[in-house]
Amino acid sequence: MAKVLTSKEENYSQWYNDLVIKADLAENSAVRGCMVIKPYGFAIWEKMRDQLDRMFKATGHENAYFPLFIPKSFFSKEADHVEGFAKECAVVTHYRLKNDEENGGVVVDPDAKLEEELIIRPTSETIIWNTYKNWIQSYRDLPILVNQWANVVRWEMRTRLFLRTAEFLWQEGHTAHATREEAIEETRLMVNTYAAFAEEYMAMPVHIGVKSESERFAGAIDTYCIEALMQDGKALQAGTSHFLGQNFARAFDVQFTSKEGRLEHVWATSWGVSTRLMGALVMAHSDNNGLVLPPKLAPIQVVIVPIYKGPEQLGGISETAHRIKKQLEEKGVSVKYDDRDTHKPGWKFAEYELKGIPVRLAIGPRDVENGTIELARRDTLQKETMPQDGIAGIVEKLLVDIQENVYNKAEKFRTENTHKADSWDEFVDIIENRGGFVLAHWDGTAETEEKIKESTKATIRLIPVDTEKETGKCIYSGKPSNQRVLFARAY
Amino acid sequence: MAKVLTSKEENYSQWYNDLVIKADLAENSAVRGCMVIKPYGFAIWEKMRDQLDRMFKATGHENAYFPLFIPKSFFSKEADHVEGFAKECAVVTHYRLKNDEENGGVVVDPDAKLEEELIIRPTSETIIWNTYKNWIQSYRDLPILVNQWANVVRWEMRTRLFLRTAEFLWQEGHTAHATREEAIEETRLMVNTYAAFAEEYMAMPVHIGVKSESERFAGAIDTYCIEALMQDGKALQAGTSHFLGQNFARAFDVQFTSKEGRLEHVWATSWGVSTRLMGALVMAHSDNNGLVLPPKLAPIQVVIVPIYKGPEQLGGISETAHRIKKQLEEKGVSVKYDDRDTHKPGWKFAEYELKGIPVRLAIGPRDVENGTIELARRDTLQKETMPQDGIAGIVEKLLVDIQENVYNKAEKFRTENTHKADSWDEFVDIIENRGGFVLAHWDGTAETEEKIKESTKATIRLIPVDTEKETGKCIYSGKPSNQRVLFARAY
Repeated sequence: MAKVLTSKEENYSQWYNDLVIKADLAENSAVRGCMVIKPYGFAIWEKMRDQLDRMFKATGHENAYFPLFIPKSFFSKEADHVEGFAKECAVVTHYRLKNDEENGGVVVDPDAKLEEELIIRPTSETIIWNTYKNWIQSYRDLPILVNQWANVVRWEMRTRLFLRTAEFLWQEGHTAHATREEAIEETRLMVNTYAAFAEEYMAMPVHIGVKSESERFAGAIDTYCIEALMQDGKALQAGTSHFLGQNFARAFDVQFTSKEGRLEHVWATSWGVSTRLMGALVMAHSDNNGLVLPPKLAPIQVVIVPIYKGPEQLGGISETAHRIKKQLEEKGVSVKYDDRDTHKPGWKFAEYELKGIPVRLAIGPRDVENGTIELARRDTLQKETMPQDGIAGIVEKLLVDIQENVYNKAEKFRTENTHKADSWDEFVDIIENRGGFVLAHWDGTAETEEKIKESTKATIRLIPVDTEKETGKCIYSGKPSNQRVLFARAY
Repeated sequence: MAKVLTSKEENYSQWYNDLVIKADLAENSAVRGCMVIKPYGFAIWEKMRDQLDRMFKATGHENAYFPLFIPKSFFSKEADHVEGFAKECAVVTHYRLKNDEENGGVVVDPDAKLEEELIIRPTSETIIWNTYKNWIQSYRDLPILVNQWANVVRWEMRTRLFLRTAEFLWQEGHTAHATREEAIEETRLMVNTYAAFAEEYMAMPVHIGVKSESERFAGAIDTYCIEALMQDGKALQAGTSHFLGQNFARAFDVQFTSKEGRLEHVWATSWGVSTRLMGALVMAHSDNNGLVLPPKLAPIQVVIVPIYKGPEQLGGISETAHRIKKQLEEKGVSVKYDDRDTHKPGWKFAEYELKGIPVRLAIGPRDVENGTIELARRDTLQKETMPQDGIAGIVEKLLVDIQENVYNKAEKFRTENTHKADSWDEFVDIIENRGGFVLAHWDGTAETEEKIKESTKATIRLIPVDTEKETGKCIYSGKPSNQRVLFARAY
């Protein structure tokens, strides 16, 4: 059968795009930069969203919903936020269409101009802190632990499915606290929650750390992040958690009366992950045959394909298939039995490989006679014929093994592609010729960071936290440093 | 304690607004016509959404996501759609802000004007059918059974929390079929699904029928709907399901090759319910003490309140409370134990009445001694002291009873407020002085419908389907009619 995907080795970027489209995850829409998330892609996103939502609720958070629109003036209230945040936003200026009497169709009604323009939220700190002002009077109203699942818009010029789109889906947590310590604790709790999700569900190892000042969220005191390594050796920021200090509380005048009766500004955090995680999931594990999904996020974990000629053969096979399907479903495994007669088994095998179904079972007439079944695992592409007896238990255990194997493979790749560099030449050589993460000393200045970026396109992905300090010399300036930081080229 | 709500009898509209705000369901935002859905309100919406989603999936539907933006020209493609659909839409004309050098803050960058304006989706038929064009070639690609959960915007001039807001949350199903019959079957399946949801989960009886031509969705051949009766005698449209014929397939040129090899236009349906259901839920059951929630949609089904003086008393009470909480949770009941020392029991009682928690359990020191507990049900406000032994089983059964009782009460109210009118005077008298539903003969013309609306503000809520025909004379024109239709003043 003809390969449907460009190979990774040939053109990684094209491989990714082919895969997203051919596996029915998403496609470009008629609106520049906006994607359509197709049912199969959305089913994976739903599994991610639902698991994250459970983790947020388990850590005491509630969901709420805030307006899509933000009055333009709100953006100017927090000085760093307006200065640092990209201004590529969708702007609503009118609220009515009217029939075009001359040319037919509709035109914007010039009489329906808004007094103040509305911005489609690129992120919701401003409108949310303007709302919290009315929710918070006393320490008794704190903490507020609220999350929102929403669509946001950033008018990106160069877009790529899932990785960078004008509209995307995300969650944004916005919490309010009585003390600095509590807000910092929340910031760290959430970045650790993201790391746990990435590793346990996405089977994707991540580093945790803080951003350098120049990479920080506009308005934040500290931005914590998780960074993952893709198979082309580029890093991908997979989630951020911001300690916002009292910046937004000051900007929107949100004060509370403390237990001691003092009026104080509220402490804030915000944190988010987006449909970008779908891009990370695809790029972290997939191969030239298609998607490789960790079983915990696979909408269909097992597919059963009958191999038959004519309806008499199908009868016996279907009986076996339904029995095994039932046994698997009783163990909580999601199973699809594909007995469509519009497609041949070979087509189905390729299709489910492309879609990353972790386990494929095939049953032919001889299997029915012999009480056997063919089992194929997607991650290693290994096939084996085994007895039908006890197959449900074997598959259940295999799904756990596959989850683990997918993680281990990604971790091995990351280990092999993480290097220390102690000189500028070494650093450049690794970045240019090998890719991956580079741990190197940095003098802590924005100037050096910028120079390194200009020369190599590598950026500081994060400054590790909770690691041992190590003195050394900056690879660029030679000035003293007391810690290695993590560099990479990145998405 | 002072009443926190205006009474229904005094001012129904104010009662509703007070209740939505005081029960922490939602509030108006800084953006005209847009609401903030607060955590407690959102938790109820989540229960509704999750149940509807399960029902959609059980009937074979999948979720997907389409762009927020629709190119302006798309609206003109289906003639009835552009003609009939309200033109009050949010229009995006620019994609960038810039710093205002003179006055500070930001202004819209005049250089960043879009070539074609984008409309924030008021509904997504156009962008979705433009997408389906690429998904459908053959009968093998049909049916497409897709649903989307999304925010939509209609620039309403007069807004009311949940009932009519500029931005609201909803789901919109958009299906594509090979035959007219199959599409009509889908349309009816979904309106029946909405009815089942309204009755079984919202405990709200509904009528099912079709809209008259003038109330039909713009672009539809037939609009099926469910209509519920609110406690002020006004009707509320709670969900619609449209049979769209081949209108959108023609407008967007979506054809398929049939089994017989003919090229044919695809048949379509669309169907939706929105956060408006929250308004219906509030207005259908609540009273002057606050919300009354059917247990199946209550985020917290049981609250336990300790009544104590000092920490020693609290110790024994908490032990009992935790034991009962655990017993209830094992039965799948959601329970909150509110042992906050910042509020008195009386305050908590009023608070949980206001929030509509179906069952309240109170435990004092004497209850600990005697092995008793006080149980209060929200729907009837009845209280009873009973043994702690077996309380979990009693509460479990009581929740079923409350669900049933809330439904029965609403159904009794609807029966008492549904009348037949056989003359114009009788019709006007009922509409003006009694409210509720009126079953009356109508001559089937849009002119008569309009005259009746002008005179009485009553509209045809629906034309019943699957009912026995009955000949009679139109109450307004005296012309012959072969079926009564359902009139009411409506939200």
